[in-house]
Amino acid sequence: MQYHVNGNLVPASEATVNVRDRGFMYGDAAFETMRAYGSSIFEWAAHADRLANTCETLGIDHGLDEDELHERVLDTLRANELEDAYAKLSISRGVQPGKLTPGPTTDPTVVVIVSELPRGGLEGSDVWDGPATVQTTKTRRVPDAAIPADAKTHNYLNGILARNELMESADEVLLRDAEGYVAEGATSNLFFVGESGLYTPSLDGPVLPGITRSVVVELADDADIPVYTGQYTTDDVRSAKEAFLTNSTWELRPIETLDGIEIGGGPVTTLLSRRFDRRVEQRHYD
Amino acid sequence: MQYHVNGNLVPASEATVNVRDRGFMYGDAAFETMRAYGSSIFEWAAHADRLANTCETLGIDHGLDEDELHERVLDTLRANELEDAYAKLSISRGVQPGKLTPGPTTDPTVVVIVSELPRGGLEGSDVWDGPATVQTTKTRRVPDAAIPADAKTHNYLNGILARNELMESADEVLLRDAEGYVAEGATSNLFFVGESGLYTPSLDGPVLPGITRSVVVELADDADIPVYTGQYTTDDVRSAKEAFLTNSTWELRPIETLDGIEIGGGPVTTLLSRRFDRRVEQRHYD
Repeated sequence: MQYHVNGNLVPASEATVNVRDRGFMYGDAAFETMRAYGSSIFEWAAHADRLANTCETLGIDHGLDEDELHERVLDTLRANELEDAYAKLSISRGVQPGKLTPGPTTDPTVVVIVSELPRGGLEGSDVWDGPATVQTTKTRRVPDAAIPADAKTHNYLNGILARNELMESADEVLLRDAEGYVAEGATSNLFFVGESGLYTPSLDGPVLPGITRSVVVELADDADIPVYTGQYTTDDVRSAKEAFLTNSTWELRPIETLDGIEIGGGPVTTLLSRRFDRRVEQRHYD
Repeated sequence: MQYHVNGNLVPASEATVNVRDRGFMYGDAAFETMRAYGSSIFEWAAHADRLANTCETLGIDHGLDEDELHERVLDTLRANELEDAYAKLSISRGVQPGKLTPGPTTDPTVVVIVSELPRGGLEGSDVWDGPATVQTTKTRRVPDAAIPADAKTHNYLNGILARNELMESADEVLLRDAEGYVAEGATSNLFFVGESGLYTPSLDGPVLPGITRSVVVELADDADIPVYTGQYTTDDVRSAKEAFLTNSTWELRPIETLDGIEIGGGPVTTLLSRRFDRRVEQRHYD
């Protein structure tokens, strides 16, 4: 496998950053996790927008344009002869003189790593083995006032500490905010189906604006399924008719159980998954 | 300069970690910042204890004993012929298969970086240019329920976002907790002198148990200065007779102003600084 580091393709084992890179020292970096279908990046424009937003929040003015970044991701896919893949693009502030307070980003570190993932679309197969077993955790989501959740950064210990609470058989956590409302998984957004339609925690809370999340909202609108965003409790989710998680690799993944209570997928989850597959198919395999 | 990476001394420019190291990907690492005086590490036992605690909180079972880690730090100092120095020891979970959920730490990444710092003790000089200009920030300290503050980790964006708020002339931030009580600086603990003695935010709040902080508490006890820990407001600090910050590199640094309001050092700060210098002197230069 070859990765892309600072403009060069290098063997994965030689893809390194200096120990004084701020990405290593402080997790001081922005990233995007993306899905390639049929050699192109699904929802590239949305990923590029969110990455730009993260960099703005962190004050990383890397000076590279979107097309250049896009090209590096595509180059990495081509170098590894990957058509259907996972790709992660990271930008750190690089090595800087001085200590914690950042200086101008004159020499950012730009890394692309990729790995093979199954084909998507109607003919594709899921990445996950089965519906997710989910647990709520004692660990609470970092509030926006401490680190804004709309920034996708290399500071992932909050999610790691939550994942460390999981029983061995569980797949994902459900983090609540400081007030106790459900926020999101460590690497996924939450949806559930109630009496009147589809529900998902509002971005006003500490919730990452997931790209798959926004695609699902769009698909639900197209299908005339009402979508509600707000503050919800674990009880709301446990008593839902259906529930599922979304992220770029999982796409839509039904929640089998939350804290041992069965929820499962259902007609709405299936309909939205089918529409998601069709969208992937139309844009990437036609 | 030479750094120590995974058991080997290497030139600083070749001191690297893989881009898939969890330290780079997630800031998933523990660290200690230490001061070497006269070729030995000040308060090594306390640093080793705290590092062990951080590793336990993160679930990093690295399998290296304290003496081995101590030896690596001392080796790095010797290799660079440094007697008075700054040293940073980091342990990450290394490269692991799988995604966010950590596996057993079979191959941790252990890094020591060092740089020269002035001699300490009575004959030494301060690292800082002058008393600190401090600003309270909109950015609030990450609560313990999200990431416990007694873990010293590579997730430093909270402090970086706070530092990004600083006006150019300011040296350090004062972060408040979710309820609005003062917690600490981005890289320092806070003390202030009031009517009845010395005050410092309680470790019950989101406050790092600083090694210098605990030495200062000990020195105050020795000098029969009452020490109070609790929840304090910015007003309490602004109206203090004296205030200072502590960390391993600064030792004790008086606060000149908080949000433009003059506080400054004074007899208690001077007395504690003198006693701190004497302790360094006695342990390392006799």
